[in-house]
Amino acid sequence: MRTLTPDKPRCHCGVFGIFGHPEASVMTYYGLHALQHRGQEATGIVTSEEVEGRHRKRFNVYKGTGLVADVFRDEKILKTGLSGMAAIGHNRYSTTGATDNKFNIQPFTVNYKGGNLALAHNGNLTNFKRLRAELQNDGVIFQSTSDSEVILHLAARSRKTEQVLQIKEALDAVTGAYSLVLLTDTSLIAARDPHGFRPLALGKLADAYVVASETCAFDIIGATYIRDVAPGEILVIDEEGMRTGRLRSLWVSRKPHEHHHCIFEYIYFSRPDSKIFGENVDRVRRKLGKLLAQESPVRADGPDDRVIVISVPDSSNTATLGYVTESQKSGDDVRLEIGLIRSHYVGRTFIQPDQSSRELKVKSKFNTVKGVLKDRKVVIIDDSIVRGTTSKQLVKLIREAEPKEIHFRVTSPPIRYPCYYGMDFPSRDELVANRMDGNVERIGKELGADSLEYLSLEKLLEAAPAEGAKKYCTACFSGVYPVPIEREAVKDENDR
Amino acid sequence: MRTLTPDKPRCHCGVFGIFGHPEASVMTYYGLHALQHRGQEATGIVTSEEVEGRHRKRFNVYKGTGLVADVFRDEKILKTGLSGMAAIGHNRYSTTGATDNKFNIQPFTVNYKGGNLALAHNGNLTNFKRLRAELQNDGVIFQSTSDSEVILHLAARSRKTEQVLQIKEALDAVTGAYSLVLLTDTSLIAARDPHGFRPLALGKLADAYVVASETCAFDIIGATYIRDVAPGEILVIDEEGMRTGRLRSLWVSRKPHEHHHCIFEYIYFSRPDSKIFGENVDRVRRKLGKLLAQESPVRADGPDDRVIVISVPDSSNTATLGYVTESQKSGDDVRLEIGLIRSHYVGRTFIQPDQSSRELKVKSKFNTVKGVLKDRKVVIIDDSIVRGTTSKQLVKLIREAEPKEIHFRVTSPPIRYPCYYGMDFPSRDELVANRMDGNVERIGKELGADSLEYLSLEKLLEAAPAEGAKKYCTACFSGVYPVPIEREAVKDENDR
Amino acid sequence: MRTLTPDKPRCHCGVFGIFGHPEASVMTYYGLHALQHRGQEATGIVTSEEVEGRHRKRFNVYKGTGLVADVFRDEKILKTGLSGMAAIGHNRYSTTGATDNKFNIQPFTVNYKGGNLALAHNGNLTNFKRLRAELQNDGVIFQSTSDSEVILHLAARSRKTEQVLQIKEALDAVTGAYSLVLLTDTSLIAARDPHGFRPLALGKLADAYVVASETCAFDIIGATYIRDVAPGEILVIDEEGMRTGRLRSLWVSRKPHEHHHCIFEYIYFSRPDSKIFGENVDRVRRKLGKLLAQESPVRADGPDDRVIVISVPDSSNTATLGYVTESQKSGDDVRLEIGLIRSHYVGRTFIQPDQSSRELKVKSKFNTVKGVLKDRKVVIIDDSIVRGTTSKQLVKLIREAEPKEIHFRVTSPPIRYPCYYGMDFPSRDELVANRMDGNVERIGKELGADSLEYLSLEKLLEAAPAEGAKKYCTACFSGVYPVPIEREAVKDENDR
Amino acid sequence: MRTLTPDKPRCHCGVFGIFGHPEASVMTYYGLHALQHRGQEATGIVTSEEVEGRHRKRFNVYKGTGLVADVFRDEKILKTGLSGMAAIGHNRYSTTGATDNKFNIQPFTVNYKGGNLALAHNGNLTNFKRLRAELQNDGVIFQSTSDSEVILHLAARSRKTEQVLQIKEALDAVTGAYSLVLLTDTSLIAARDPHGFRPLALGKLADAYVVASETCAFDIIGATYIRDVAPGEILVIDEEGMRTGRLRSLWVSRKPHEHHHCIFEYIYFSRPDSKIFGENVDRVRRKLGKLLAQESPVRADGPDDRVIVISVPDSSNTATLGYVTESQKSGDDVRLEIGLIRSHYVGRTFIQPDQSSRELKVKSKFNTVKGVLKDRKVVIIDDSIVRGTTSKQLVKLIREAEPKEIHFRVTSPPIRYPCYYGMDFPSRDELVANRMDGNVERIGKELGADSLEYLSLEKLLEAAPAEGAKKYCTACFSGVYPVPIEREAVKDENDR
Repeated sequence: MRTLTPDKPRCHCGVFGIFGHPEASVMTYYGLHALQHRGQEATGIVTSEEVEGRHRKRFNVYKGTGLVADVFRDEKILKTGLSGMAAIGHNRYSTTGATDNKFNIQPFTVNYKGGNLALAHNGNLTNFKRLRAELQNDGVIFQSTSDSEVILHLAARSRKTEQVLQIKEALDAVTGAYSLVLLTDTSLIAARDPHGFRPLALGKLADAYVVASETCAFDIIGATYIRDVAPGEILVIDEEGMRTGRLRSLWVSRKPHEHHHCIFEYIYFSRPDSKIFGENVDRVRRKLGKLLAQESPVRADGPDDRVIVISVPDSSNTATLGYVTESQKSGDDVRLEIGLIRSHYVGRTFIQPDQSSRELKVKSKFNTVKGVLKDRKVVIIDDSIVRGTTSKQLVKLIREAEPKEIHFRVTSPPIRYPCYYGMDFPSRDELVANRMDGNVERIGKELGADSLEYLSLEKLLEAAPAEGAKKYCTACFSGVYPVPIEREAVKDENDR
Repeated sequence: MRTLTPDKPRCHCGVFGIFGHPEASVMTYYGLHALQHRGQEATGIVTSEEVEGRHRKRFNVYKGTGLVADVFRDEKILKTGLSGMAAIGHNRYSTTGATDNKFNIQPFTVNYKGGNLALAHNGNLTNFKRLRAELQNDGVIFQSTSDSEVILHLAARSRKTEQVLQIKEALDAVTGAYSLVLLTDTSLIAARDPHGFRPLALGKLADAYVVASETCAFDIIGATYIRDVAPGEILVIDEEGMRTGRLRSLWVSRKPHEHHHCIFEYIYFSRPDSKIFGENVDRVRRKLGKLLAQESPVRADGPDDRVIVISVPDSSNTATLGYVTESQKSGDDVRLEIGLIRSHYVGRTFIQPDQSSRELKVKSKFNTVKGVLKDRKVVIIDDSIVRGTTSKQLVKLIREAEPKEIHFRVTSPPIRYPCYYGMDFPSRDELVANRMDGNVERIGKELGADSLEYLSLEKLLEAAPAEGAKKYCTACFSGVYPVPIEREAVKDENDR
Repeated sequence: MRTLTPDKPRCHCGVFGIFGHPEASVMTYYGLHALQHRGQEATGIVTSEEVEGRHRKRFNVYKGTGLVADVFRDEKILKTGLSGMAAIGHNRYSTTGATDNKFNIQPFTVNYKGGNLALAHNGNLTNFKRLRAELQNDGVIFQSTSDSEVILHLAARSRKTEQVLQIKEALDAVTGAYSLVLLTDTSLIAARDPHGFRPLALGKLADAYVVASETCAFDIIGATYIRDVAPGEILVIDEEGMRTGRLRSLWVSRKPHEHHHCIFEYIYFSRPDSKIFGENVDRVRRKLGKLLAQESPVRADGPDDRVIVISVPDSSNTATLGYVTESQKSGDDVRLEIGLIRSHYVGRTFIQPDQSSRELKVKSKFNTVKGVLKDRKVVIIDDSIVRGTTSKQLVKLIREAEPKEIHFRVTSPPIRYPCYYGMDFPSRDELVANRMDGNVERIGKELGADSLEYLSLEKLLEAAPAEGAKKYCTACFSGVYPVPIEREAVKDENDR
Repeated sequence: MRTLTPDKPRCHCGVFGIFGHPEASVMTYYGLHALQHRGQEATGIVTSEEVEGRHRKRFNVYKGTGLVADVFRDEKILKTGLSGMAAIGHNRYSTTGATDNKFNIQPFTVNYKGGNLALAHNGNLTNFKRLRAELQNDGVIFQSTSDSEVILHLAARSRKTEQVLQIKEALDAVTGAYSLVLLTDTSLIAARDPHGFRPLALGKLADAYVVASETCAFDIIGATYIRDVAPGEILVIDEEGMRTGRLRSLWVSRKPHEHHHCIFEYIYFSRPDSKIFGENVDRVRRKLGKLLAQESPVRADGPDDRVIVISVPDSSNTATLGYVTESQKSGDDVRLEIGLIRSHYVGRTFIQPDQSSRELKVKSKFNTVKGVLKDRKVVIIDDSIVRGTTSKQLVKLIREAEPKEIHFRVTSPPIRYPCYYGMDFPSRDELVANRMDGNVERIGKELGADSLEYLSLEKLLEAAPAEGAKKYCTACFSGVYPVPIEREAVKDENDR
């Protein structure tokens, strides 16, 4: 039995927080449900509850492996076990095989001299190996293998007396990508790294404040989007209201500070109905399809020929619409068709037969609609190619439906570099674009397509709105890293 | 906590059988996975295994509640526990709340004088209450509340000496809808009622024969479709090969026998990538959309106006394509858009907040893509309306995205009558078309739409291929029942 | 991993029933808890509950594998799930390995033409194979492999119109051993076979009637013992009160009817604090020890020598007291000591190391108290020897504590014949008394004891009170069977 | 539902360790099984395993709530999951209700700068609140609420470079009671506090060394007892063999160092077949009974009168033997009888009926043997009385069997003071000896006995062997604490 390793980069996490709601845990449950696509292997909720006769809050914790709806299947957990007016929650991918992996499920909760503290983190710290080694050398014991735990130890060891300053001191010491929500005895704190790699939005639901990785988590509970938590901002929400602060690095930096949002959020991670980095994801994705049609059209062979465009559902549906609309401007008979059906009942394990068909894995997820494809020129739109394994099997599957030709179009450039800011790629050697030395023609042959084209980096950046300090991180395509990476991390990556 | 009662008619079951494959259980697992949409609450597999030194096969059984991928999560169950060269499997909806409901999970397996016998049934027997009462009166003890158990008792009590004749005698006694697979010590038997209400296809995988409710179960394992099991046919597959027989009622009937396939299979139940009743589902569904556009178009208000057509994903996607393509012929600016995003992580329970938003239930499944809908004339395409509750909440949800108008179009006629042949509707009083006395305008107002139109029964029948004996059951729309219903069943329905 | 097969004959079951108590399920829970020693692998409770607006009772069922306290760990099951004023319950050993063994857990519950019927059975029917074959031949489907199910089918097929007569007709058809409790829509029925093989007592708790295998189940809930259910009696308890009837065989028999109580109940099965067959178990067991001391004393080697008598705890404790008291009359220095400590935490599985000590199994249950045994003449008292495996390992264990001599004394005769009335022995070939051809000296050598003596059959019968029709079944010692055994059953036993 | 709170002081834990055995985990499993009486609510095993190509060992961990045989029911866990040549294990009582209680199950395992470290602890540290506060103040984050975690943090923060010196530095900082086993990447370490409060024995099994709380854990696996780990000793066992060291406090102390073994281990905690503090528990317990008979005999009323002595099984069985033997010297007719039967099937929860009998709780554990007690002068021997609740109900239960008189004798003095060294008593206000101001007559009346006598402290100390530095802690009886208690701990106790 092998774990289903989807042929997509994986986002590490989704975070959610709410302060001042009588059903904080139920709202968090729905928020996490809406963010399920950002992490499907483990989830947890922490609430802070006032207890009569105790001056500190009681922190209630419930975590488990599986989908949000499975872990919190028992309504009593939410309604009785997780009482309280404030809550934070987290979705994640679990580390595989570790016997102690329960320790890696977030939110992390600790009790230290400053009281209770819970943390949920989306992103990746780039200097955590060094910080961890320094702390260990100083006698600190780590419970998890997560980079996020470093923040807690740094805060606990701060000599500041005010809790928010302890946390600020900790954040000033770490580099890399983080969109954080923290719960303390008195407040909900949201913070985002100075580059703003990962999204983090602020909203309002009646008298309560909410923060979430994506705005789709607001829609589900009926909350209103206010604004994004700004890169480098630290927001404290308590009974007094909301206060904002800035991380030290923003104060000391001389040159104007630039943001580097993860452009892959627009390409694949975020839900199309979310608004992130100030723009609707749906709109960017449609533009990606449009620009790709301009760059790499597939033309009909004549007036009687028809080109069929199909999406790899569901992540490429919106871009496919853009591609078709743009293509139709050519006057060719270009039609959108539903040529692939996706099963949404895929389980956590894939059972491989001892013999027979190797395609069972892709077939357990996709099936073709035969009549639609037969004898047609078929364009497949996908958002990205990572290992290429699934793409190759998809082409083979479609080939069985006997199309005339298969043209593969990708709404992003070839992925060639690792991400150190919170995406989880396979090792470089497994990336098909690296294995084929970036030679698109060779990749196309490897996939078995009659043609293959990627969107250019230039057009990709054209699709994403940018103005002033607003820039994007394109490291996985370009190898240009906005934040320097620890040598050890790079070495690790090569060793994998 | 309440069970999520989807606002769709529910199919009772999917069945699968295979004979002569060394990994019969794994193939059945994948077959059931492909048929998951036909029943998601319980599943089971039975295999027959040769045991050295025993002249009868050993029957291995594993059943449980939940999705196929969950129940059979442990690979050992399939590979070690369910050995054998032949297998049958079943997906179903469980009866709710019954303390003894484990007894209702199929396949049923019994040991009787004729040896082992396992049965999986899709459909509904119309005379089972009378048969059950007669059998009970005769001293028979029932283990389940399922109508399917009647068949087993009838076969066990038959005085015939050959097993297939015992089963034939049982089937000659029952009326109604059944697509059956049975496993005996020596054979796999497939049978279908004379009307052919439910689909049942026959295929081949190397040396093995396979039968399944839909052909998508063949695609996943790479089996080839041969033909449908004919209405009134009983197929015996054993080591000698395949033999066919006919049910007695076909011999004694004077008038030419007509089939009555369930037309709802085309509208909603079956997967678009399946071929049933001799036609690709995808093709029929596209035609439904096309005919609906002809009957009930939505026109632009002028040359500068744009009409947006959105689907209620995923079941209406194909019909929506048909609707859009046909509408564009008018010359209006009619565009397909992705206006609703569906979450596929919905769990088995819905946790209702104590206060606040009533729309959480629909929002936990759907969200709108705001920019797309704003200020537009929006057409929503759905395949059917049952209670109307979800449709109403959908309209409300879309209204929040501030469209100019909302026009609701349904690719089937109003549902007004109960189904006694294997679909599970709510009681008649809950059907919105009944509550509004079939007045479409009133229903549209109830839903909050600016206009509402259903496809006519006439056009529905036009979309489904018919020739010779090939007819359709439209009872749920027309009230015309091809097989008489027991008085008691009718009474029951009214009493619910 | 192997199941711990204790080296003792195993009783099949304990039964309990109560009628007319507002907390019938809780009382049954405690009754079954007190009867836990009669069956530790599975347990179940059925209650009948009045439901407003229904003329028949609702039968609530909960069954599971494990100890009573584990299966009913969740208080809600008892207090909410198993409401009702009447209940029956059952403890049993599960059949091993059967994939369908859940079907074999009692009470069995069926719904038939006469209404609801639940049954719990202690004992073994001797003609059930024939009856089962006849019924199967007649078209009956069996759900379990249990002999008890035959009774339900016979009752369901009876043409009598009154339910109690249907049950009486069924019981008149079966032979062998049965102490039964049945629950119907209106009554609790208790019945005992004409020989009275297994015990069954009747008691009262306030306004409620109770029946149980042993009186210790009355003590725990504070019920008062009234009398035994008589051999051949059928007792009907309902809202009118209690009626008694006799089985037909008692009416038609010409010769005076003799009872044949299982004498092994006194030797080992029943708890010492119970009263069965009209006598306190404790009193009989003490007498067994006394008579054994008279028949097979162990004398001191001189006035300075001391004889140490130890019990194999806990089942032989009482008999050991009797042995010591009688032995002290000789004037020798004979002392009772606690030489073996028994662990009560033994689990359901025994984990065998790959190498090393073979004695781990017995050591996981027993340890010696070293100082007590060293250099002493040690007498071990055990109630019975079956396979001899545990006894042999016990002797070896004690030998390690360096006693002067080890004398093994058994408070019953050698077991040489199978039981067909409800005890579960290993096959005849595994009985050490058979393997050694009944040669006591050889058995003693096999065990490694310096001497071995069994109680004689004559003295065994002297210890158990007998008068009039009150006789005992001694088949396992003598081979004399009071009820003829079906040829097929005998054959089966030999084949095992 | 309430947890069964036994009316006995509870020992916190049992520990076991083994180094150099190919089946280290299986041996630990059996060792923990033999120590089950020292902690029945949670258990865990850690092994260290050599992994090819890694210079550090892999530490495998498995912990769970429940009995040893339940937690490790799956043989694969032991044989595959817990490979390695060295292991430590722990049994404990879980803290109740804490949501994070999983963190409190031992062994604790951490990875720190010195490598892997696992710890299992029996006892209680008296200065841990101060140490914990200091550490927290220094920025340390605690995962559990256990005092044992302090040791790990102290070792991790030590500036020593050798691991054993880090651990020694940690132990030099803590005070109170500890019998410890630790597992490092290269060794097994055993350590005992200078007073030797809790037992810890050293043994050998072929080439492997073993350490365990009691010698009964050696007997089960066939290991040989070598000697006790000495108070204040720290033993390092690695591939080189065994080295011994002494804690610093022993070097700096001027006055001769005295041991203070917990005398309650002899009275109740330890198994009678164990040897602890250099003496067989069985022998001490018998002497307790003998001395009690001398101090507080119960005489027959005349030559025809018989005195019956019964034990509260099983913990008082041995002492009862001593009491009876001594009493018989008077020439009176004094007899040992089995008057109470104990059920060993008691579950983890007690289900209270809504009404009726309050005695169900005690009756679910004990039943009387009626005939034995009737009209007799009955002496009950118990090892201790804590709350008095169970004792009172026992007296009531026995009274129902209609004895002439009931005389309660306790083989230890009244318990009046809390234990800070590893026993778990209820609060002082719940101790019956405190509630009755130590007035034995009043306590006797409260229990409903005709007389009550405790063993004197003087006689208790006479029973336990003492020589040279070997002394006993009697704090729970005398209030004299060998190690000073932190003020805060005392305050806590009063507040409970």
